[in-house]
Amino acid sequence: MDNIKNYVQENKDRFINELIELLKIPSVSADSAYSQDVINTADAVKASLEKAGCDFVEICETPGYPIVYAEKTIDKNLPTILVYGHYDVQPADPIELWTSPPFEPVIKKTELHPDGAIFARGACDDKGQMYMHVKALEYMVKNNTLPCNVKFMIEGEEEVGSPSLAWFVERNQEKLKNDVILISDTGMISNTQPSITTGLRGLSYVEVEVTGPNRDLHSGLYGGAVANPINILAKMIASLHDENNHITIPGFYDRVEELSREERDEMAKAPFSLDAYKKALDIEDVYGEATYTTNERNSIRPTLDVNGIWGGYTGEGAKTVIASKAFAKISMRLVPDQEWNEITELFTKHFESIAPKGVTVKVKPHHGGQAYVTPIDSIGYRAAASAYEESFGIKPIPVRSGGSIPIVALFEKELKSKTIMMGFGLDSDAIHSPNEHFGIFNYLKGIETIPLFYKYFTEMSK
Amino acid sequence: MDNIKNYVQENKDRFINELIELLKIPSVSADSAYSQDVINTADAVKASLEKAGCDFVEICETPGYPIVYAEKTIDKNLPTILVYGHYDVQPADPIELWTSPPFEPVIKKTELHPDGAIFARGACDDKGQMYMHVKALEYMVKNNTLPCNVKFMIEGEEEVGSPSLAWFVERNQEKLKNDVILISDTGMISNTQPSITTGLRGLSYVEVEVTGPNRDLHSGLYGGAVANPINILAKMIASLHDENNHITIPGFYDRVEELSREERDEMAKAPFSLDAYKKALDIEDVYGEATYTTNERNSIRPTLDVNGIWGGYTGEGAKTVIASKAFAKISMRLVPDQEWNEITELFTKHFESIAPKGVTVKVKPHHGGQAYVTPIDSIGYRAAASAYEESFGIKPIPVRSGGSIPIVALFEKELKSKTIMMGFGLDSDAIHSPNEHFGIFNYLKGIETIPLFYKYFTEMSK
Repeated sequence: MDNIKNYVQENKDRFINELIELLKIPSVSADSAYSQDVINTADAVKASLEKAGCDFVEICETPGYPIVYAEKTIDKNLPTILVYGHYDVQPADPIELWTSPPFEPVIKKTELHPDGAIFARGACDDKGQMYMHVKALEYMVKNNTLPCNVKFMIEGEEEVGSPSLAWFVERNQEKLKNDVILISDTGMISNTQPSITTGLRGLSYVEVEVTGPNRDLHSGLYGGAVANPINILAKMIASLHDENNHITIPGFYDRVEELSREERDEMAKAPFSLDAYKKALDIEDVYGEATYTTNERNSIRPTLDVNGIWGGYTGEGAKTVIASKAFAKISMRLVPDQEWNEITELFTKHFESIAPKGVTVKVKPHHGGQAYVTPIDSIGYRAAASAYEESFGIKPIPVRSGGSIPIVALFEKELKSKTIMMGFGLDSDAIHSPNEHFGIFNYLKGIETIPLFYKYFTEMSK
Repeated sequence: MDNIKNYVQENKDRFINELIELLKIPSVSADSAYSQDVINTADAVKASLEKAGCDFVEICETPGYPIVYAEKTIDKNLPTILVYGHYDVQPADPIELWTSPPFEPVIKKTELHPDGAIFARGACDDKGQMYMHVKALEYMVKNNTLPCNVKFMIEGEEEVGSPSLAWFVERNQEKLKNDVILISDTGMISNTQPSITTGLRGLSYVEVEVTGPNRDLHSGLYGGAVANPINILAKMIASLHDENNHITIPGFYDRVEELSREERDEMAKAPFSLDAYKKALDIEDVYGEATYTTNERNSIRPTLDVNGIWGGYTGEGAKTVIASKAFAKISMRLVPDQEWNEITELFTKHFESIAPKGVTVKVKPHHGGQAYVTPIDSIGYRAAASAYEESFGIKPIPVRSGGSIPIVALFEKELKSKTIMMGFGLDSDAIHSPNEHFGIFNYLKGIETIPLFYKYFTEMSK
């Protein structure tokens, strides 16, 4: 299947420029200031799918941001692949740490990306990886090599927990009917060692508010005599982990699937250098749950992290104040078989219970999702493995990712089909961080690999 | 001395309007955005002192904001009173909690101020209380009742720790020579029970920075595997107090003056209602160091409070990020005989020592000052007590304040004279908080009482 290689080579400049145009639109779903940009991005995605050769494309309104739906049907008797992706992006802040503006894409070479990488918010997560599928379809349609039917469902709320997607999927089960769901919103081990994500962590994301006195107070006149909401919040957060970095919320681990020694030994075979890991993050040592390795801590174990904290005077200089309120955003990554709604309830109950007299506590659930594990003996996984092996020349390794795509569990429940996660990004691509980027090599390799998945999946489904 | 009462009644509208004009200038010394306003305020204070009848007024440049110096000498053989105050104010934020703009003064009635109170940042701390002295001088000059010499030293950096004042005082000992220093920058128990502040707490103010990974990370891919600077900062802050709310910094209490049972019993006689205290702050219970009462916790005991904390994503919605850095502003209120520089060093050493591997810690000292206690058998204290008793018709009670005026200890060291703190504000005036205000009654009563201090101090000095 050299045609695709040639096609990519002939069109790569156009592929890159089209993606760059898409990346220029700041589709930050978490911040309502960007709502028009999010909607404009949906329109741009719709246009790209029409141009790629879909025979039906529509913008589907939802209670939140619209979902772009498209399909190309060649034969009702052939399998149907449903491609899922998202056109929204994470907020860009802290903006001052970007070496170039997050929505003015530029190509720069890096140690891991000698052919250059596109630097922009959303370059990898997920505009770049989503657009690989649009370009792969373009190739298959133009060259009459599309072996099966395809549907696209591209949403605009993934970075805020996909609040409208469940609503949409429940109402469109017939329309979304498929034989396998294909997502590129994860990573792979390296450009020389592809991997397929077989597991995702679940998520429970909450915001907490601790209120002490009814107004900010002078820390001299009241200091030492009233509960300081910031000190109390710090104390409450600190108490959520014990000395072994186990999470102290009662019942938190009750449903956690414990992997066998064999499974853990299998995982341990994935190439990993702790020194390189520490060097890349510029840290003296790693930190986490006792008796687990770094790769276990960020994949098969649940976690609790504060994602943001604020309270009191944070401006220039000094203000001797005791704040009336302190806030934190806290997220928990979950593993099979934790129930995210149950975990949110356990957290809320526990957090309220540890608040001392003198403060009141509010816990506001943001969103969440279930963890997911996909079997490696399915047609979908085997087709993906063959596709990677052919385009990279080496067998991919199955890995569990620490990230969350909450809707994968939803798809299985509502659409009764398995999801295959063919990711082409690298952990070092700084998704959710300043200077997010996506390697040109990875982008083009993805476009090359996807048609192979279509081919093998159709053959193996016969 | 009814003339002063009459004079205040005849001129009270003008006194109020002049203060309102002064309060309109946002002289926030902590925020360089207001630097021109701070300087303009110095000019306004200079003009008011000239108008009040000083025979020499000047703006003294310093490494920071200028100091307004003035004097009125009637006889070298008579005592000299040095009046200290400050024309800078605290930042106004959180601005959204003000019921009227902080720099657009308005008069509103409150439960404790039935005659109305002026609402504005700096109304009480310290523009209003400083201006009482200007108006009292105006009265004494106009009516030829000034019994002694007076000097004014009004600075513009008190809210940021008076960094330039020591520099100024050391260089102007002869010019500042005096027999007593008079300050109105504290409060009193109530409008029916005046009190004189005989003690002030010291201060050590620091800013801490905790750095983990060299960039913000995706909390799914790295969560659980690296030290999260916010969780670590929370843990470090929490560890600074033990289960009895004692501060855990080694050596912190070594120099703390322990009061005798008798002294504590004497203190306990000051009228205080815990229920009213809790009701005013809308809290279910107080919180503080075991075995000490509320009034002891906020006056004779040292404290450690976080005044501000920030890190990670604090915007709208959710961002699943592990921040690279987390910050906090922390202040410690000190009591005799703690050395503030030593405490800053002890804190820094301890805070760095409790940082786990995987993060680095920076501690930046902001400013500080010594605690202070003034004897109640001095001429200055007795003159102040007589002045309050005459104008309020009731003996004032000596109290220790939890606040800090670091320069009081400096004055004693450099100028070899005692400081008398004649405060007229109330704890409920919300200084350093949104909706700061100063009672019209208190403002006028202060103008009435100050000339009595001049009279008694001169007589008792004979």
